[in-house]
Amino acid sequence: MTYQEIIALHPHPSDLDREAALRCIDECLDCAASCTSCADDSLSEDDSREMTRVIRLALDCSEVCDATRRIVIRQTTPDFRVTRATVETCVAACVACAAECDLHAAHHEHCRICAEVCRRCQQACENLLATMA
Amino acid sequence: MTYQEIIALHPHPSDLDREAALRCIDECLDCAASCTSCADDSLSEDDSREMTRVIRLALDCSEVCDATRRIVIRQTTPDFRVTRATVETCVAACVACAAECDLHAAHHEHCRICAEVCRRCQQACENLLATMA
Amino acid sequence: MTYQEIIALHPHPSDLDREAALRCIDECLDCAASCTSCADDSLSEDDSREMTRVIRLALDCSEVCDATRRIVIRQTTPDFRVTRATVETCVAACVACAAECDLHAAHHEHCRICAEVCRRCQQACENLLATMA
Amino acid sequence: MTYQEIIALHPHPSDLDREAALRCIDECLDCAASCTSCADDSLSEDDSREMTRVIRLALDCSEVCDATRRIVIRQTTPDFRVTRATVETCVAACVACAAECDLHAAHHEHCRICAEVCRRCQQACENLLATMA
Repeated sequence: MTYQEIIALHPHPSDLDREAALRCIDECLDCAASCTSCADDSLSEDDSREMTRVIRLALDCSEVCDATRRIVIRQTTPDFRVTRATVETCVAACVACAAECDLHAAHHEHCRICAEVCRRCQQACENLLATMA
Repeated sequence: MTYQEIIALHPHPSDLDREAALRCIDECLDCAASCTSCADDSLSEDDSREMTRVIRLALDCSEVCDATRRIVIRQTTPDFRVTRATVETCVAACVACAAECDLHAAHHEHCRICAEVCRRCQQACENLLATMA
Repeated sequence: MTYQEIIALHPHPSDLDREAALRCIDECLDCAASCTSCADDSLSEDDSREMTRVIRLALDCSEVCDATRRIVIRQTTPDFRVTRATVETCVAACVACAAECDLHAAHHEHCRICAEVCRRCQQACENLLATMA
Repeated sequence: MTYQEIIALHPHPSDLDREAALRCIDECLDCAASCTSCADDSLSEDDSREMTRVIRLALDCSEVCDATRRIVIRQTTPDFRVTRATVETCVAACVACAAECDLHAAHHEHCRICAEVCRRCQQACENLLATMA
């Protein structure tokens, strides 16, 4: 995606590991879109009453991924305590959504796929946190 | 604000302390709007070059307050690890923005006021976290 | 709410009618929170399968109210074609959500109240648009 | 990106042209990230005082792209008047941001690239609107 070129042109890059940050941003974009879509698919399923918690946690995860993506993109004079707390929240949101999606993966393919995307995003967040240690 | 009546009508309320949650939501609404506005005021000041970090941290804080408000509003089958991490991130974002606004409070009244709003929001978040212990 | 003081301190205010803009922002804050909450209440109702469209349109309306609020708050060198289109979209989102909530107002008090909030927000948006003519 | 598979699994797809919608969502994701990044790059430039309007319009465009992406993703019982107004607002936001970025394209490569991304997103939105006629 083109946005990566714009990030690379920042006149005063932050100390965040560039590669780990880009990976995190990329996964947050996919995960935000995937969770919005999985919540919406679930809402239209015949058994939507059983999908209530998937819908709720996917909406939360989508919200958190969007906030995380914006905060990790910005390189201008960050406060890394904010960055760290945000990325940790993203890990928690991805873990919660993936666990709930797993419960429906056998009968709803969109939940199976969404759980995978959440776990990739969780991994990318954990990798970024590891570079900040 | 009317939204509080809608929250009170949830058919299966969560275990979150109602009063502390409402206070947190209210402060997140004011803080999100205040930070968007303070970042925008700062961007138009003659000394905006010195306000770069205020702008950046106020944008982050606005983002986090909006995500926190949505997640705390929802009462349907929450994962409290997500709620807790989100509210903790909101504390970090408010602390960072307030500290930077303080540095400009003497010459920019909007920074002085924004710092106050951030600290009220921080306090409401900490109170909510205390009820979750 | 305190954010109004921060808006009033902008060093180079936009030509937007101040009073109409503040009213629009205030209603967008209440409507965004109300729609998030009404969608969540509806998701937990026993007849949630009949509430699918309320949930969907309330989520849309919440999204649009948040974007509108941020764009109307900013006074720094706006492009009023963007402002106008955004506020018009907010009218459409409020009209759609209110109409769907009306269908459930008789048996779900939160839908009755949410429809009222949406209509107040619609009115505030239309008033702001009238001042831009 | 994986989210497209999840969209394709919706049990009751909307009448929106699938291919045009996916293209619009994809460009909104790239444009939202690009505009957040261009605003942040601009904020750190030595001549940031001359970039004020880029920063403002890029923040607006990022906000609108995120809202548009979520509303176009959802296929559950849409109100197409809301969808249409949202996508039209996205066109306006992209046009405004691209025009302002053009003014700085000669001396700031990130503005040149951001203008291109905005125009691709504008085109994808216009294509989607054409299928809704």
